[in-house]
Amino acid sequence: MRMAVIGCGRIGRMHAANIRLHPETELTMVFDEHAPSAREVSAENGGAVAASADDVFSSSDVDAVLVASLTATHAEYIERSVAAGKPVLCEKPIDLDLDRVNACAARIAGTRVPVQIGFNRRFDPGHRAARDAAANGEIGMLHQVVITSRDPGMPPRSYYENAGGLLRDMTIHDFDLARFMLGDEPTEVMAVAGRLIDPALMDELDDHDTAMIILRTADGKQCHINNSRTSAYGYDQRVELLGSEGMVTSGNRRPHETRRYSGTAVEAATPYLDFFIERYREAFMAEIDAFARSVRDGAEPEVSFEDGRRALILAEAAYRSIAERRLVAVGEFD
Amino acid sequence: MRMAVIGCGRIGRMHAANIRLHPETELTMVFDEHAPSAREVSAENGGAVAASADDVFSSSDVDAVLVASLTATHAEYIERSVAAGKPVLCEKPIDLDLDRVNACAARIAGTRVPVQIGFNRRFDPGHRAARDAAANGEIGMLHQVVITSRDPGMPPRSYYENAGGLLRDMTIHDFDLARFMLGDEPTEVMAVAGRLIDPALMDELDDHDTAMIILRTADGKQCHINNSRTSAYGYDQRVELLGSEGMVTSGNRRPHETRRYSGTAVEAATPYLDFFIERYREAFMAEIDAFARSVRDGAEPEVSFEDGRRALILAEAAYRSIAERRLVAVGEFD
Amino acid sequence: MRMAVIGCGRIGRMHAANIRLHPETELTMVFDEHAPSAREVSAENGGAVAASADDVFSSSDVDAVLVASLTATHAEYIERSVAAGKPVLCEKPIDLDLDRVNACAARIAGTRVPVQIGFNRRFDPGHRAARDAAANGEIGMLHQVVITSRDPGMPPRSYYENAGGLLRDMTIHDFDLARFMLGDEPTEVMAVAGRLIDPALMDELDDHDTAMIILRTADGKQCHINNSRTSAYGYDQRVELLGSEGMVTSGNRRPHETRRYSGTAVEAATPYLDFFIERYREAFMAEIDAFARSVRDGAEPEVSFEDGRRALILAEAAYRSIAERRLVAVGEFD
Amino acid sequence: MRMAVIGCGRIGRMHAANIRLHPETELTMVFDEHAPSAREVSAENGGAVAASADDVFSSSDVDAVLVASLTATHAEYIERSVAAGKPVLCEKPIDLDLDRVNACAARIAGTRVPVQIGFNRRFDPGHRAARDAAANGEIGMLHQVVITSRDPGMPPRSYYENAGGLLRDMTIHDFDLARFMLGDEPTEVMAVAGRLIDPALMDELDDHDTAMIILRTADGKQCHINNSRTSAYGYDQRVELLGSEGMVTSGNRRPHETRRYSGTAVEAATPYLDFFIERYREAFMAEIDAFARSVRDGAEPEVSFEDGRRALILAEAAYRSIAERRLVAVGEFD
Repeated sequence: MRMAVIGCGRIGRMHAANIRLHPETELTMVFDEHAPSAREVSAENGGAVAASADDVFSSSDVDAVLVASLTATHAEYIERSVAAGKPVLCEKPIDLDLDRVNACAARIAGTRVPVQIGFNRRFDPGHRAARDAAANGEIGMLHQVVITSRDPGMPPRSYYENAGGLLRDMTIHDFDLARFMLGDEPTEVMAVAGRLIDPALMDELDDHDTAMIILRTADGKQCHINNSRTSAYGYDQRVELLGSEGMVTSGNRRPHETRRYSGTAVEAATPYLDFFIERYREAFMAEIDAFARSVRDGAEPEVSFEDGRRALILAEAAYRSIAERRLVAVGEFD
Repeated sequence: MRMAVIGCGRIGRMHAANIRLHPETELTMVFDEHAPSAREVSAENGGAVAASADDVFSSSDVDAVLVASLTATHAEYIERSVAAGKPVLCEKPIDLDLDRVNACAARIAGTRVPVQIGFNRRFDPGHRAARDAAANGEIGMLHQVVITSRDPGMPPRSYYENAGGLLRDMTIHDFDLARFMLGDEPTEVMAVAGRLIDPALMDELDDHDTAMIILRTADGKQCHINNSRTSAYGYDQRVELLGSEGMVTSGNRRPHETRRYSGTAVEAATPYLDFFIERYREAFMAEIDAFARSVRDGAEPEVSFEDGRRALILAEAAYRSIAERRLVAVGEFD
Repeated sequence: MRMAVIGCGRIGRMHAANIRLHPETELTMVFDEHAPSAREVSAENGGAVAASADDVFSSSDVDAVLVASLTATHAEYIERSVAAGKPVLCEKPIDLDLDRVNACAARIAGTRVPVQIGFNRRFDPGHRAARDAAANGEIGMLHQVVITSRDPGMPPRSYYENAGGLLRDMTIHDFDLARFMLGDEPTEVMAVAGRLIDPALMDELDDHDTAMIILRTADGKQCHINNSRTSAYGYDQRVELLGSEGMVTSGNRRPHETRRYSGTAVEAATPYLDFFIERYREAFMAEIDAFARSVRDGAEPEVSFEDGRRALILAEAAYRSIAERRLVAVGEFD
Repeated sequence: MRMAVIGCGRIGRMHAANIRLHPETELTMVFDEHAPSAREVSAENGGAVAASADDVFSSSDVDAVLVASLTATHAEYIERSVAAGKPVLCEKPIDLDLDRVNACAARIAGTRVPVQIGFNRRFDPGHRAARDAAANGEIGMLHQVVITSRDPGMPPRSYYENAGGLLRDMTIHDFDLARFMLGDEPTEVMAVAGRLIDPALMDELDDHDTAMIILRTADGKQCHINNSRTSAYGYDQRVELLGSEGMVTSGNRRPHETRRYSGTAVEAATPYLDFFIERYREAFMAEIDAFARSVRDGAEPEVSFEDGRRALILAEAAYRSIAERRLVAVGEFD
């Protein structure tokens, strides 16, 4: 499968390398508004440098498109890729504005062109093994899910400007993971969010750096998400599934398995893999693999446009819960 | 210190043995409405069998009283012990009714007789070491606390009758632990509770078996508590403290450190210590020890009557949050 | 069972407390050549202070004797206790001189008075669970045993004088544990020993502080023991059993289950329980319990005089291996 | 750097893929006596299929050679590569016959053409971090090394025919790792080896499937190696370094970090990565990287021909120890 990458920032660059390394995909075109970035990615991983996004969508050398550009462009690129009949794997979130997402959904409704959203965590071998164990009944009936998701450190100030707020930018991954783990739709949301790490900056930007959320499904399953923009000990990514007959967890990954023993501490391990590119290395590759398979086999993508929309709805519901200090029914957004 | 135990059920019996084993305390009297229980405890641990609670409070052989009787009698026994000038260590909760607790508080106001409430978990060496690490600044500013508290299995039906509901009976420990760990007062509470383990029974009793709660302090620190009445893998008692510079956790305890390695699983440990008498063995002993020291030194008890009252208020606030589907200010109960 | 303790040093004192705490044993007499030690133990745990060892053996208030005096007196006290018809639990080693042990064996041959040797590690719940797993076939055929046994620090110089050398003093526990774990008799021994921690002192005393040993049974099972007189991270006591179908291990114990996470290390636990009195607390109590049961039921003690003799033979064989730089057949000592 | 691979079996194929993936190396030629294997590797990773080894050594498209052919051909290919002025990375062992290795050493003496031996374990990030910690003095003076090295299962019968016996085939890695970890030369060796897994086959082939070895350096540092040809729980590869001030270990790797908790076991992890290609994935890539750097910079290879020779000498010494039932001085082989 010949692929193009639109958007050659940090994550686009990583995807480009994965496309090169994957045995069934090839990078044939790259595009970035900032041409030097595109040239750099092309030099490293092959692929022609497109002069415009149009060139990508009209190219006969491009079978499918990976969108890793700014969030504000995602919905449009999805629409154009679908219009061009090219399967598209688009980074999360689809858009920060639910109306825009709904409009996009309306425009691509009924298409058979595969659209996959980049919720990479679903492809993490550990998270997936945990989900599979629960789905296979290994822990009986599922009762509770606990998702811990903490970034190693605050992003630079510029990052926040287009990020859309903690819940749409960072927690959105956890909302999707919650749905994946629950195997069911949350119908109620309550959230608290705070400004503990850099109160002045968060105040100024009207953003949050720390949050706790509870989700509940129609049949009563409970899910807790906790988030922090800082985690001194590395990228903290844990999932815990409690069922009537046991528990299964997916934990953090270390770069290697050394342990130190001294008079003050024992079994001290090296800090966790940091950051998402390292921690979710296998996941990002498996994501490309799943996309390639779904295109090849004409199968539904494992993470659909609707999955992207549902995650955003949960973020909206959580923001309403914060604003109105109440339990919010997800149905308010349908 | 010569002590009496009032209430010779499972937990009273354990306290009686600890009083016998502690080098500075001696069991001199026991009382239970059900005389055979008192006789049994007396036979095992010494102490005269009192004919009535009156005999305990008027005895010159009793320096202090441990109350482990039915919850409905706690407040009265606290009042009588204080009136008799005898320091009292009373099992939690003080009462299921906040008005009764407030009345008791009014009656003992200004007393210098030590009253300690039996929140044993504060005395667990692991939990305490975690709290101390946070209090000492080892993890910087405290941001989040996560308390996991799951009982190994549903109690017998009869137990529920006087238990007062999941949050007053079981979560009350976690509310206290949250306050201990936060080192601060939660000012807002939101909760969801469900009936997932035995829906029919819980429905009939109008009780819950599974819950998730979020607490927040005035300065924004967040705390999550999750509870389940069943945990197939043993008594699950964990605390996690996240700060600006690191994390400290206190985990579950195993009876010994064997691990098994086979073709299907590696590092498989023996299930956790089960149940509270085993898991919190050192804590219960340390609780007696702290009580003895506070009486001897005329110091404030480490867990005060007010601590017992605040934990109940948090339970009330959580119940209101469930009923009214909103974030509840703790100040509504003051 | 009314018991006397002979020898009121650190370990005798611990045994005295255990006898007091055990529900079926009572401390009725104590003796030490150094009378103040005996008086102290008596004050703490009860029991008359005997004027001489004779008084112990002739007392009608003593049903059984625990010997925790200097090693040089063990064999004699065993003989006298047996002669007096009093069951005896004697600390290891029986004697540093194999001839003396053999003479003692001859003198008590045929007695029905129980004689138990104080190899406490066999009673450790973790070690025992590992042994039981192997004995029950959980790991298939047993192939290899690895015993790690490292003391937290060098004892004071005075200690070495009567200790008999590293292998007779410290490794003797591991030789016994090897036999217990293997469930079989080692027939060959090879050893190296060194002076790495305090070469000058070890040279002067002609002793060793560090050793590695390999044992083999007649049917080829292999066992490795490693020893060090210093372990900065606490008392290191591990057993690993490899079988054809898996592995089972028994590991170190922590005082509690806190873990610390920072920018330089994660999952850092508190150092291990240190030293034997803390680490093997349950084992020492279980040892008393097993002794009491064997006396009560007239059963063979779980650790026999012959077990004590075989461990010493292995030490002798290891010393010969070191001296003659060869694999030594244990049969050379029979 | 343009590289050729000679020998396209399982390990040659893995190296070919790594050469393709490494940013500084390119696969330009492949050769195997069995031409279809070479064609397959060429199809997957690029590179011309050479008609003979001669073609490789005379090709102007080949800057360096990786030898992964049968052991019996290693020494000759090293000699020819050196003669052709092409740096060579050769799989272990150099040869099963020490005389042949010594002859090869004589022939290439004085060459400045880099020759690196394929002891991949030195490049494992965990093992290396442990070694570095010890080398940097983090654990004080090094006293003991314990290497556990167990293959997941018995190889097919055909494998044994050219393998040269357990100690030359499998333990040779551990002998090298021992030297790497000790940072010093072992001067004495004692070993026992047995036939516990498949006694009939091992008897017939005069080979062993289970071994325990002790090495000692001139200054007394001790090292234990244990080996088994079967490990039901996955490839077991552990290193433990004890020093005067602490310990550092490098442990097994899991494919992901799930843990399962049930009524019979808790914290049960997925079995270890199995087999060497998966477990030592990073190590094999780092090995290519180190080779490329040493060629580029004209630096000494990190694992020299002499390292390959010393490991074989330790194997020979261990075999003599087994045959003569004694501690063998390594100097007997110089």
